[in-house]
Amino acid sequence: GEHRAKAERMFSLMDGFLKNDPISLQKDILHHVEYTVARSRFSFDDFEAYQALSHTIRDRLIERWHDTHIFFKRTKPKRLYFLSLEFLMGRSLSNSVINLGIQDQCAEALNQLGFEFEVVAEQEGDAALGNGGLARFSACQMDSLATLDYPAWGYGLRYEYGLFRQIIVDGFQHEQPDYWLNFGNPWEIARIHVTYEVKFYGTVEEVEMNGDKQKIWIPGETVEAVAYDNPIPGYGTRNTINLRLWAAKPSSKFDLEAYNTGDYINSVVNRQRAETISNVLYPDDRSHQGKELRLKQQYFFVSASLQDIMRRFKEEHTNFDELPEKVALHLNDTHPSLSIAEVMRMLVDEEHLNWNKAWDIVCKIFSFTTHTMVAEGLEKIPVDLLGSLLPRHLEILYEINHHFMEELKERIGLDYSRLSQMSIVEEGAVKSIRMANLSIVCSHTVNGVSKLHLETLKTKTFKDFYGLWPEKFQCKTNGVTQRRWIVVSNPSLRDLISKWLGTEAWIRDPDILSGLRDHVDNADFHLEWKMVKRINKMRLAEYIEAMSGVKVSLDAMFDVQVKRIHEYKRQLLNIFGIIHRYNCLKNMDKDSRRKVVPRVCIIGGKAAPGYEMAKKIIKLCHAVAEKINNDTDIGDLLKLVFIPDYNVSVAELVMPGADLSQHLSTAGNEASGTGNMKFLMNGCLLLATEDGSTVEIIEEIGADNLFLFGAKVDEVADLRENGVSNLAPLQNASPLKVPLQFVRILRMVRDGYFGHKDYFKTLCDSVEAANDYYLLGTDFMSYLEAQAAADKTFVNQEKWTRMSILSVAGSGRFSSDRTIQDYAESTWKINPCRCPL
Amino acid sequence: GEHRAKAERMFSLMDGFLKNDPISLQKDILHHVEYTVARSRFSFDDFEAYQALSHTIRDRLIERWHDTHIFFKRTKPKRLYFLSLEFLMGRSLSNSVINLGIQDQCAEALNQLGFEFEVVAEQEGDAALGNGGLARFSACQMDSLATLDYPAWGYGLRYEYGLFRQIIVDGFQHEQPDYWLNFGNPWEIARIHVTYEVKFYGTVEEVEMNGDKQKIWIPGETVEAVAYDNPIPGYGTRNTINLRLWAAKPSSKFDLEAYNTGDYINSVVNRQRAETISNVLYPDDRSHQGKELRLKQQYFFVSASLQDIMRRFKEEHTNFDELPEKVALHLNDTHPSLSIAEVMRMLVDEEHLNWNKAWDIVCKIFSFTTHTMVAEGLEKIPVDLLGSLLPRHLEILYEINHHFMEELKERIGLDYSRLSQMSIVEEGAVKSIRMANLSIVCSHTVNGVSKLHLETLKTKTFKDFYGLWPEKFQCKTNGVTQRRWIVVSNPSLRDLISKWLGTEAWIRDPDILSGLRDHVDNADFHLEWKMVKRINKMRLAEYIEAMSGVKVSLDAMFDVQVKRIHEYKRQLLNIFGIIHRYNCLKNMDKDSRRKVVPRVCIIGGKAAPGYEMAKKIIKLCHAVAEKINNDTDIGDLLKLVFIPDYNVSVAELVMPGADLSQHLSTAGNEASGTGNMKFLMNGCLLLATEDGSTVEIIEEIGADNLFLFGAKVDEVADLRENGVSNLAPLQNASPLKVPLQFVRILRMVRDGYFGHKDYFKTLCDSVEAANDYYLLGTDFMSYLEAQAAADKTFVNQEKWTRMSILSVAGSGRFSSDRTIQDYAESTWKINPCRCPL
Ligand SMILES: Cc1ncc(COP(=O)(O)O)c(C=O)c1O
Ligand SMILES: Cc1ncc(COP(=O)(O)O)c(C=O)c1O
Repeated sequence: GEHRAKAERMFSLMDGFLKNDPISLQKDILHHVEYTVARSRFSFDDFEAYQALSHTIRDRLIERWHDTHIFFKRTKPKRLYFLSLEFLMGRSLSNSVINLGIQDQCAEALNQLGFEFEVVAEQEGDAALGNGGLARFSACQMDSLATLDYPAWGYGLRYEYGLFRQIIVDGFQHEQPDYWLNFGNPWEIARIHVTYEVKFYGTVEEVEMNGDKQKIWIPGETVEAVAYDNPIPGYGTRNTINLRLWAAKPSSKFDLEAYNTGDYINSVVNRQRAETISNVLYPDDRSHQGKELRLKQQYFFVSASLQDIMRRFKEEHTNFDELPEKVALHLNDTHPSLSIAEVMRMLVDEEHLNWNKAWDIVCKIFSFTTHTMVAEGLEKIPVDLLGSLLPRHLEILYEINHHFMEELKERIGLDYSRLSQMSIVEEGAVKSIRMANLSIVCSHTVNGVSKLHLETLKTKTFKDFYGLWPEKFQCKTNGVTQRRWIVVSNPSLRDLISKWLGTEAWIRDPDILSGLRDHVDNADFHLEWKMVKRINKMRLAEYIEAMSGVKVSLDAMFDVQVKRIHEYKRQLLNIFGIIHRYNCLKNMDKDSRRKVVPRVCIIGGKAAPGYEMAKKIIKLCHAVAEKINNDTDIGDLLKLVFIPDYNVSVAELVMPGADLSQHLSTAGNEASGTGNMKFLMNGCLLLATEDGSTVEIIEEIGADNLFLFGAKVDEVADLRENGVSNLAPLQNASPLKVPLQFVRILRMVRDGYFGHKDYFKTLCDSVEAANDYYLLGTDFMSYLEAQAAADKTFVNQEKWTRMSILSVAGSGRFSSDRTIQDYAESTWKINPCRCPL
Repeated sequence: GEHRAKAERMFSLMDGFLKNDPISLQKDILHHVEYTVARSRFSFDDFEAYQALSHTIRDRLIERWHDTHIFFKRTKPKRLYFLSLEFLMGRSLSNSVINLGIQDQCAEALNQLGFEFEVVAEQEGDAALGNGGLARFSACQMDSLATLDYPAWGYGLRYEYGLFRQIIVDGFQHEQPDYWLNFGNPWEIARIHVTYEVKFYGTVEEVEMNGDKQKIWIPGETVEAVAYDNPIPGYGTRNTINLRLWAAKPSSKFDLEAYNTGDYINSVVNRQRAETISNVLYPDDRSHQGKELRLKQQYFFVSASLQDIMRRFKEEHTNFDELPEKVALHLNDTHPSLSIAEVMRMLVDEEHLNWNKAWDIVCKIFSFTTHTMVAEGLEKIPVDLLGSLLPRHLEILYEINHHFMEELKERIGLDYSRLSQMSIVEEGAVKSIRMANLSIVCSHTVNGVSKLHLETLKTKTFKDFYGLWPEKFQCKTNGVTQRRWIVVSNPSLRDLISKWLGTEAWIRDPDILSGLRDHVDNADFHLEWKMVKRINKMRLAEYIEAMSGVKVSLDAMFDVQVKRIHEYKRQLLNIFGIIHRYNCLKNMDKDSRRKVVPRVCIIGGKAAPGYEMAKKIIKLCHAVAEKINNDTDIGDLLKLVFIPDYNVSVAELVMPGADLSQHLSTAGNEASGTGNMKFLMNGCLLLATEDGSTVEIIEEIGADNLFLFGAKVDEVADLRENGVSNLAPLQNASPLKVPLQFVRILRMVRDGYFGHKDYFKTLCDSVEAANDYYLLGTDFMSYLEAQAAADKTFVNQEKWTRMSILSVAGSGRFSSDRTIQDYAESTWKINPCRCPL
């Protein structure tokens, strides 16, 4: 009665949903200008327009977020919780208006207010809460989860400082902290009352409880986690899921000790430090070995997320037996793997389940994806560190291992070598916990991120585990979302595709892209296709000129290698190739030069701040660029530019504008790679080794449609050891595996042809003869051949365009929609749960 | 043409101003619930209602703020900039809706949504960016400046941690950091683009510039200041002025050094610490001697504010000669006095004015108020510290002093003793800058905060300066705003006053309050007056019970002493008086007890964390309370409660509910006091020494209408030295100045009657015989007599009520409106500038 009357009143006071016609949008924008941004509607600039529009969109996201949330609560589906320490979201505005289906209306609304959508959208800074591939893949997966209506939540950390900004001074990388929140973040909703205490340190005590002995943890330090919700709208659906990021905040908890040192000011300052310490993203994309701070971040994240998840479960269910039917926990690499010990602790210490029962449940809820290719990259946590920071968790880990070892002995006998290899605890100089072994033991599914990767896992990295539990091992090749990587970043291509396919359905159903094959020989299509590429090259050329002052010709082949700088990714091979090209050009007569395809070589990427070799590669790139770009004799025939501060937004600009992209990892080192897929989607041809997911791209589009080179994964070990390939012993029998060209280039660098002789010495050493772990010398000739093939093909624009079309046509398989559907069906066992309109 | 058409379009898209009828308010509240708080309109709690209502009010404040701003920009009046390191604003919601004149509409709107205004308003936390009297006075002045339409801006610091929260455990004070921003702050507008760089450290170099030698400062560290604007609405006017608070934020400035130490994570963490370090309010309300952090805060504040002020001036004017006609800078105590050196630096080093010209201007723009009574309390900054943090400023200070000394020698000759006393530089063990001397030398006006205070300044503290520049010295007795201290905090009294005065005009014109004298003998008025007091006592009694569990009788006299805990404020005298009362009661027979006026003694206040003696006073209060409150023999005849965490909101509750309030500072120690004025406004009788502004209260309401006691300011020095008063040598000739009662009570505490014998020893020592610097012993008998007089009067409720009415009737003079008008006319020379409706 009364309740109902009140509800009706509340309803009557507001219209239904916010309206999306251009006039309503303008009103909302102006309202936000005046009352949120607190400027005047008669005078606001592009950035303020961005803020106002973003808040206008935010309002709409909140509506959908809320409806989705209520719908999930009501229907109680099994939920997936995607746990990842990194999400590389980039910008949100364009993505949101596209997924909400109100892009045109927004553009018109802005237009009528005297603004341009593109310019306004460029005001947004990147949310760069991650390092590279793994982190961007997490973001793509969130987009797919939302679009495919899966009842999923993401959990992560709200670093105050995202990935450092790269600044180049005199060709050297410098790192600037990225305080991305300085200008506000309209894309998050602060949930000031959703907070949890996270505990650290302290001791473990044994108590009697109902006659049983029970361990309890008496923690020594408390930090509070507060939730920030980031709505993730799906495309073509009302579903808008949540990415919940945790921030550390000062605990309002009674904590007398901390302040009663007599020196109030210093106590507060020290405390403040403890609380904000979890707020810097670690800038290493490959390893996180044994840093206390990093461990603190991991547990802070794990503890807050699991408290939240368990609270939600317990609100709806009373029996933990139901947990595996209602909750799937996904470990995105081993960074969140402390979750396993934490859930055990919660079930055993707090919910008083017995160990075996708890373990049974835990083994049914976790799945795990490893992104690591080589055993040395696997995360280990020193026992000393863990025992001090999380004493109870260490005990639990020991107990898990004890049970596992017992079981193992029964199954494989007393094979001590294998037992010690498979043990979760690594004995040795620094006794450590092997996070991957823990994750494999406990997860019902262990996923590799490409077929090649899975094969390596089965046959090498986790051979013994595969022998034990073959059914656990699955391949889920990574993917990327065509919403961001075509629709947002390449609107011209989007229109072209839709026009020729006669539908936009590919935006939700990427397999439809294969329909482009029907038009692969259509001349009109070719013409339009080339025009789109040219438009995108123009945008990229403008950016290059603005960033580096180098003017580039649109007729040149835009050849791009953008990704984190790593020895295994072999940017050095690219640079050596460029030096080679330069040498060739210098030695050519005018006539020969006229036949040369002009090149713009574009390199971009960040080096981890402590990774000296990677930083030297960046400097070498600049040194070579300086030489080449200032050589008037060479002119437009060859340019080399380094694009600083490579991030998601730069990628969105670079990929559509690239003709050729390079993926040069020594075979067997790149677990999947996703950059290759993004270039593929943008009709850029690949020049690549047969590594990671490229192998599947070859399967999909055929080896003719990309430029392959280099040693194959099976040859690498032999090549390293013997300097010969086991596969082609006759061809490659010469003990002098390094070609003369390579040696000569190496000598040029060594001798200071590009200056900085001393500085480059160790870099040169690292690829010299027997030191050449990543086989640059070995692969060099093959690399040059592939480059020559690319040059040759580029002259034949019809062939090139055909290959480009077929690349896009084959890219559907590399949509994260496919990845996610696969995960949902065969790993997480979750079903779509579509919120009604 | 086009411009006009666009403006019309912008206009037509939104209605004019936001509407304030209850239905419009409800719609806005629900809108904010859904889209700002991101909750559902069907389910939100009191706190969320507070957030939504606050945002609704904020929208309206922004409108007015904006119009006022534009109006000032257009009319270009001379502006006052009020510089203060502390503002004790308390809560904002009630104050805002009252000043906006929409209290009833808001209450009705909430009501219809199922909420109560009072309950919702209680959700707000205090903004406690200050320590005590000085800080709350700053807040009162902002309210008066807005109400009186003055073109003024306040500048301050946005401490992330306000004044610590006081928590009592076992009777001991513990300090908890007050992270007041944890739950968001709707009352501020982040001006993310209004930022300035603030520099520290470094060196000074001499350069040639147009043939002249010029000093320039090469700073070593940069921090960024970002503006947060807090709209301050006037009452009965559209004028809404700005309180701009600065927060430190990470500088996005190119600062390679800081990050190229190789250890990126640690660099960021250290940097973060440097940036947040300015964000803790120092919890000492009386002295800030030589702490680097504090100095950093001061300069951070000064630099950001002056950059902002100068930018604004330069936008409108080109000639610095106009500065004194357009800008008044007020130094609220010496905390912002580095401004003097900073303006000199800006004019000389940056604007290239010559020294004398610059000095001439500077001397015309600064005014200064000192809140300090005793010379030892004056702020000094060690030269070493200043020279390292602000090397160029130190040079400038030396030069200012050099010129001043030269001038002084001409005027007073080579009187080295006087010269060294008046010098801005103090030689001695720690060579220091005397901030008060600096401020006096440079300011055109030096203000005391009460007549008594000014007298002391003239005759003692700044005697020599007064001799030199008598015209500079002015008295501006402090005041408090009746909007907060009656209208917000005591709505029943507000209604009663308006009813009997027949007008609400006193809310803008406090002198009208004297009209209450016409009804001072009206019996109906008395009845209603007593009823109002009883209602307020009821509220207070409920609070006391909730906080301390002690039930108190409404028939008892509520006797309150709330203020910072200080030896000079003599809470100990109060406690000794209570012990005395307890002893008397214990010794009484039943009959005599029946005639005793029951008392509820209420003490509240924070002790600076490092102030041991003050902390012992708090503990003693609890120890005595424990004894008394648990003595069933005494029952309701005497209760003692300590109200923890005294702050503005507690004051708003306590003052209306008090019958009697105590202001016990040893004469000559309290420069003004404002607590006394607030109690006065709430019809609470004062029991006080003749100190600070109490002297003027006596002038205004007559000595009969309050309970006075104790040594007068002229007697104190002699009493201290000789144990006798110079004024009454005959009466007080006994060398045994300390009465037996006092000695006995002291002995009880010493002997452990209240426990904690060892802990209280130093406290007892401090008031023993010759140590008794604050003359507790000397004043004790007189104090008891005043207490007896209060008891006696309380029995005569008619007389008491009369006195109470006359207190309120005389409180108009103590409105900050009067203070501000006085400052505006005789110090700042600014005129009202009323924004049209
Ligand atoms: C809304 C608004 N208007 C105007 C201004 C500029 O005002 P001023 O130049 O007086 O600082 C600001 C900056 O504070 C602002 O935020
Ligand atoms: C919270 C607070 N602290 C301190 C003071 C200053 O009180 P007094 O002037 O009695 O020292 C006041 C003034 O009322 C106040 O509100």
